[in-house]
Amino acid sequence: MTNLSRFALLSLLSGTSTAFTVLPSQQNHHRPLSASATTDFDLNSYLLSKKEVIEKALDASVESLTPETDKICESMSYSLMAGGKRIRPVLCIAACEMFGGSEADAMPTAVALEMIHTMSLIHDDLPAMDNDDLRRGKPTNHKIYGDDVAILAGDALLSTSFQHVAQNTPSTIDPHRILDVVIRLGKSVGPVGLAGGQVMDLECEGKSDVTISDLTWIHTHKTATLLQVAVASGAILGGATEEEVKSCERFALDIGLAFQVADDILDVTASTEDLGKTAAKDLDSDKATYPKLLGLEESKDEARRLVEDAKASLAPYGERAAPLLAIADYIIERSN
Amino acid sequence: MTNLSRFALLSLLSGTSTAFTVLPSQQNHHRPLSASATTDFDLNSYLLSKKEVIEKALDASVESLTPETDKICESMSYSLMAGGKRIRPVLCIAACEMFGGSEADAMPTAVALEMIHTMSLIHDDLPAMDNDDLRRGKPTNHKIYGDDVAILAGDALLSTSFQHVAQNTPSTIDPHRILDVVIRLGKSVGPVGLAGGQVMDLECEGKSDVTISDLTWIHTHKTATLLQVAVASGAILGGATEEEVKSCERFALDIGLAFQVADDILDVTASTEDLGKTAAKDLDSDKATYPKLLGLEESKDEARRLVEDAKASLAPYGERAAPLLAIADYIIERSN
Repeated sequence: MTNLSRFALLSLLSGTSTAFTVLPSQQNHHRPLSASATTDFDLNSYLLSKKEVIEKALDASVESLTPETDKICESMSYSLMAGGKRIRPVLCIAACEMFGGSEADAMPTAVALEMIHTMSLIHDDLPAMDNDDLRRGKPTNHKIYGDDVAILAGDALLSTSFQHVAQNTPSTIDPHRILDVVIRLGKSVGPVGLAGGQVMDLECEGKSDVTISDLTWIHTHKTATLLQVAVASGAILGGATEEEVKSCERFALDIGLAFQVADDILDVTASTEDLGKTAAKDLDSDKATYPKLLGLEESKDEARRLVEDAKASLAPYGERAAPLLAIADYIIERSN
Repeated sequence: MTNLSRFALLSLLSGTSTAFTVLPSQQNHHRPLSASATTDFDLNSYLLSKKEVIEKALDASVESLTPETDKICESMSYSLMAGGKRIRPVLCIAACEMFGGSEADAMPTAVALEMIHTMSLIHDDLPAMDNDDLRRGKPTNHKIYGDDVAILAGDALLSTSFQHVAQNTPSTIDPHRILDVVIRLGKSVGPVGLAGGQVMDLECEGKSDVTISDLTWIHTHKTATLLQVAVASGAILGGATEEEVKSCERFALDIGLAFQVADDILDVTASTEDLGKTAAKDLDSDKATYPKLLGLEESKDEARRLVEDAKASLAPYGERAAPLLAIADYIIERSN
């Protein structure tokens, strides 16, 4: 099985692509990523500072307390600590803070989101799936630990994510809100989440009659759903009302799809060198993409429209939405 | 990789072995399974009636609501509904009822336990793990749906299990108790659960210096932990105190290990025909087993001792413990 677009998107979302990694040294060479945001919010500094605290929490989240668990914990940590922009945890914390919650309120869920995302990468890379040897420039989990341990490390990360949320979310948070987060996280990997999206993607592989509706269903469930849960969970933990959570979900769904449209566009327009991966693989395959189905210009319009819709959903929150608005802009700028 | 004992045990625990399947037609030919229990509790009828209601709940727990999710749901249901004695759900419900809770209080967790168990079977059977073509006399999940869909169906079952508990446990139950169940379920698949036990098992494969302590660690985490969580979760949902939950955990840990010792004994003493699988595979391999490390008679003594200890843990509950006590006896009778 080859399913390159899925992998490419996940790589981008997790920050593999060197073209979009926000490093301090790049700030002089590119216009600020938040240039088109409504504020002068400094997204670069924000992402870097959040990434630092998130990675500390991730590192502490998997600890071997007895020699018997050294190998499984090593395998889990190897992929969990392999880098990336940590966009899901950042979205979760930003949404929580938008409603007056603290970083600590959202952190266990932020860690869980990254554990789930990492599980999906480990399992995606397996020979039975995309059969990839490299991820973020390093050998994939199964190349180091073997296919069997890699499968088990993914399973362990997935189950530990739920334990982590239930065990470590501050006791000041209403337990019904924590259960709501567990429900949403659980759903995000099931039939109407990651796994369902990927199976539907497999079903459509090589088919010539894939519609824009099929493609949107796939990307909504493979990608946008986990982003949606990241933002919605942060909002819930921050004390948002049901209506406020819904506005956050609309925002995240739109940026999730925009991410995917942008990824498809990049795959056409970016060179292999820029992307740090083999570009335009999807064009060589029978893979359905937005540019193929809509054309390049209309795809760009679609990405812009999605980001504008996303930002409109957060209009009620004014300045408090600055980090999320800047992240939305960041997505569309990638493909301009 | 071949790891036959693991697979054999899981098969037994899930009721593959025809020698121990409790069917009404067998009741005239065998002494009652609960013969050595302290009551005249009818375990056969109990297991059959619980199995029926559990399977209804399992069947309803995976439902495709849109054509796009038909395939993933079909794959999940295929393995979830493939039979077995449903011993983990039964243990959970029995423990809940022992403390005055209802079947309905425990059912979402009972379903989750079977989802988790099923996930472990699907992933165990993969070519990258035990590479088994048959389970319960039917083709394994990946033989029907492919390795990729089988991996995703396992992931979806695992994540859905947590969603199911958080979403469907009756709202009359204290949410802190539901979160406690989520924590325990999460832990049961992680480094000190299924995945950790299996990785340690892989590490010990082919080694000549495996100790009884290593073997006990492996089986505690691969097998006993999920049984422990089944009984403890039931107790928690039934309203048990912390001390009562601990007594249930001791019970379950002992019967979990007794199950494994009995399985190792059966592997030596039972014929292939009786077991409905290739017997004595472990003897042909370098696999460490209790009979190999302790001798056959001492292993039988160990199994008996474990079951006696298990039953002693439930002494305070008198007649209310009848179903759990009968299940404990049932385990040891398998290997006599």
